[in-house]
Amino acid sequence: MPADTSASRIAALYNPEFLREAGRRLGELLAEHFRGVQNRETSVLNWRHPAENVAEAGMFLDMGTVQPALPIPDEVGERFAVLVRKALERGQNLHSPRYVGHQVPPPVPIAGLFDAVSAATNQPMAIYEMGPWATAIETALVERLGAKLGYAKNGFAGFVTHGGSMANLTALLTARNVAIGDAWEAGVPRQGRMPVLVAHGESHYCITRSAGILGLGTRQVVKAAIDDRRRIDPAALDAQLTTLKRENRLPIAVAASSCATLIGAFDPLEAIADVCEKHGVWLHVDAAHGGAVAFSEAHRHLIAGIERADSVVWDAHKMMHVPALCTFVFYKNSAHRFEAFRQDAPYLFDPSDPGLSEYDSGLKTLECTKRGAAFGLWGLWSLFGESIFGDIVDATFQLTRAFYGLLSDAEDFMPLHEPQCNIQVFRHVPEELRAAPADILGRYQLELRKDIVRSGTFYLVPSNKDGTAALRCAIINPLTTPTDLNDLLNELRARGRSVLSRLK
Amino acid sequence: MPADTSASRIAALYNPEFLREAGRRLGELLAEHFRGVQNRETSVLNWRHPAENVAEAGMFLDMGTVQPALPIPDEVGERFAVLVRKALERGQNLHSPRYVGHQVPPPVPIAGLFDAVSAATNQPMAIYEMGPWATAIETALVERLGAKLGYAKNGFAGFVTHGGSMANLTALLTARNVAIGDAWEAGVPRQGRMPVLVAHGESHYCITRSAGILGLGTRQVVKAAIDDRRRIDPAALDAQLTTLKRENRLPIAVAASSCATLIGAFDPLEAIADVCEKHGVWLHVDAAHGGAVAFSEAHRHLIAGIERADSVVWDAHKMMHVPALCTFVFYKNSAHRFEAFRQDAPYLFDPSDPGLSEYDSGLKTLECTKRGAAFGLWGLWSLFGESIFGDIVDATFQLTRAFYGLLSDAEDFMPLHEPQCNIQVFRHVPEELRAAPADILGRYQLELRKDIVRSGTFYLVPSNKDGTAALRCAIINPLTTPTDLNDLLNELRARGRSVLSRLK
Repeated sequence: MPADTSASRIAALYNPEFLREAGRRLGELLAEHFRGVQNRETSVLNWRHPAENVAEAGMFLDMGTVQPALPIPDEVGERFAVLVRKALERGQNLHSPRYVGHQVPPPVPIAGLFDAVSAATNQPMAIYEMGPWATAIETALVERLGAKLGYAKNGFAGFVTHGGSMANLTALLTARNVAIGDAWEAGVPRQGRMPVLVAHGESHYCITRSAGILGLGTRQVVKAAIDDRRRIDPAALDAQLTTLKRENRLPIAVAASSCATLIGAFDPLEAIADVCEKHGVWLHVDAAHGGAVAFSEAHRHLIAGIERADSVVWDAHKMMHVPALCTFVFYKNSAHRFEAFRQDAPYLFDPSDPGLSEYDSGLKTLECTKRGAAFGLWGLWSLFGESIFGDIVDATFQLTRAFYGLLSDAEDFMPLHEPQCNIQVFRHVPEELRAAPADILGRYQLELRKDIVRSGTFYLVPSNKDGTAALRCAIINPLTTPTDLNDLLNELRARGRSVLSRLK
Repeated sequence: MPADTSASRIAALYNPEFLREAGRRLGELLAEHFRGVQNRETSVLNWRHPAENVAEAGMFLDMGTVQPALPIPDEVGERFAVLVRKALERGQNLHSPRYVGHQVPPPVPIAGLFDAVSAATNQPMAIYEMGPWATAIETALVERLGAKLGYAKNGFAGFVTHGGSMANLTALLTARNVAIGDAWEAGVPRQGRMPVLVAHGESHYCITRSAGILGLGTRQVVKAAIDDRRRIDPAALDAQLTTLKRENRLPIAVAASSCATLIGAFDPLEAIADVCEKHGVWLHVDAAHGGAVAFSEAHRHLIAGIERADSVVWDAHKMMHVPALCTFVFYKNSAHRFEAFRQDAPYLFDPSDPGLSEYDSGLKTLECTKRGAAFGLWGLWSLFGESIFGDIVDATFQLTRAFYGLLSDAEDFMPLHEPQCNIQVFRHVPEELRAAPADILGRYQLELRKDIVRSGTFYLVPSNKDGTAALRCAIINPLTTPTDLNDLLNELRARGRSVLSRLK
């Protein structure tokens, strides 16, 4: 076969032998990488200005490339390794025990190799035929996770979608369509009973966004009153729903959080469910972060009552430690599974086989083509059993209690709440700032954070409580130790001194 | 370290050494799998009833699992291989040259291993810090693909999102927010100028869905008139927009297709852009499938004028042959990049560094956490250079011309259109059905398709033209040969005989 024809170039691209070599190299590169990162030999974030990284990523795209040819030359294997190494060197290292940042975990790496099976073969679903095993593992996982939440067997429905924002949007779209029978076809009404969405004021931003997307308008989001631990106050919610009724407004849902983003507060779901039942309002629970406590005997109580929610969102790519994105949506009543969307696509759905439409994911999800997003979770669970999920929840929650203890005991740190889970908001208040105005204290937190993050020693995130900036950690890497947390405080103190001198 | 504590179990999960072994095994299993599939030794679809696959997938979840322990026992490596092999055996085999089904390609498999780097390490973006290299490769690709479309350097903006449906939704949300200044905050108006969406009547179902989601209502979708080749008719569109103006309606966008789903018709974008400019209406082009013709000298003319579109959607996971999902959204005017969404998330976006928000993907995309979806495309392009994308477009379009020739020459097949790309709709009309009523002829197509698909010999899809069912192929595997296509016709004839006998 001549090496320079289009056909032979294409055949070479698909040369199966190349995967043998690439798989071997990938395994070695990942092993080497994670060893260094987990041993704290590597910076957490390798900070570079974006423009610098963009230019370098582009250089690889533009530079003279090897010609694929049969047999694949060693050159391609070498180049594959160069590209993988570059990507590993320039990424964010969630696997560092000194990553205590956002609510995104270091996935158990092997889950990424299961995802590669889905990626390399493409199992795009939408309809069962286009991803029979992808559909099967998703369905099997929906059954088990729904049971973990406490939903009645055979009564509920669920599916996987790409991330918490899309999941919350889909569930709230369903709630909208159920509350306003003809909203899908006729649009959102602006006369008569004006629709509103009642939500925890510190819910993830995607909840308010959903109101903007769905045509309700973000001004139609009513903040549920919260108690002194920043959880929805059921008695106040009851009064709010009564007032809305008097004002002739139509609450399409109450969106509670397990947990809310700011300090990780878990709403009291049993009492909220009572109120929603009383008023006949859809209860939605965003358990993107907290759903995984269902696996922990010690912490399961935080979501007691979740089985009464009409819809629930749960990110496996948060506290179940699989790669993003893998989010589950549940409906208590399976009759709601086709309420979000309606379509007519003759080239997709075969009317001669109506019984199978139950397994056609495209009827339930925003996605049409939908990668097999649950391979990582299915593989991880099948490999090691479900006990690992409770282990990780317990370990990270316990570490956060320890961190709270360290903060409370220190003269110069101020925890801003007692942690319910693995989220802790705090401030560093060195002696010099004890009497400082709030804006200076806040600016110091942000500058200190930027300094430490760009040094690569630790990764933590900014926050804001009561109008003043603060520091925030999600202790989500189960390899983090109490020593790391103590080192974090010392690093903040040390770097704080030079930040202070610059602030003045 | 005792083997039975939670801490040691967790440490074992993250044991880097395991990746070395798993990577090696993955490479071997994939090589072996693709060799068999590409050599036509494996069924295209291994048909099993969904309930059977679900039960088996669940069995792996429930069965006694190995305990992770340090050092990782061989048992775990074995079990990893068992699980991967099972997933490979039970999937849909897009890599079979006899897969001529949906508009979802067999990805170049090595791209899946680049995706594994993103999955194993998790590079979740939303903000630049959380995926610096993921952001960099996405940005570098946006620059190059936007230039391919013909957008003026520095004038446009773009990003990656999870699939064509979400991409079209986001672009149309932007169009809605631009057309109705306060729709985001106040909701979609139902008085005054009623908003409408003008769309190709054979656009992907997600376009009409978008109207349902966005609060416009699906009834507010006006079908653009089409010509005899099922492309939007610009003169008729001009008249429609004039009528809508007279009726005091507000078109938020004209949604054209490159190409429309039914027969793969490419709308005449230059003429449509003229009409949209004249009426001051946003032009959106869904080029999910067809965007890749930008890489082909022979076929680039099909999207001439696309650089005049206000927004464009392009799936790299269609005709650029990377794993799903990797979709690009472009805005001609970069000022529109933050129009879709607005939020306030103090724990995410650091106000002390406003210059970097340009690189925070979460401000532009529906996703907050967003896997690094462009690793596969970046790796593939960097490895082999961009010429491969044009090669694949040319090869598959040429094969489809050949298929059209075969269908036209055969007495018993009827192509329903001349192909503009790699989509071909047709019917098998054996002698016995020449005078049959349309419903019988249609039922025959569906039954024949089901029969052949479940036999595993070929994979093609159902369609419907003018109310009667038909067969449809996307010839999207560049390893398909003219011989395969000839064999397909013979297989349809042979299986048709037994289907016919059952129909009677």
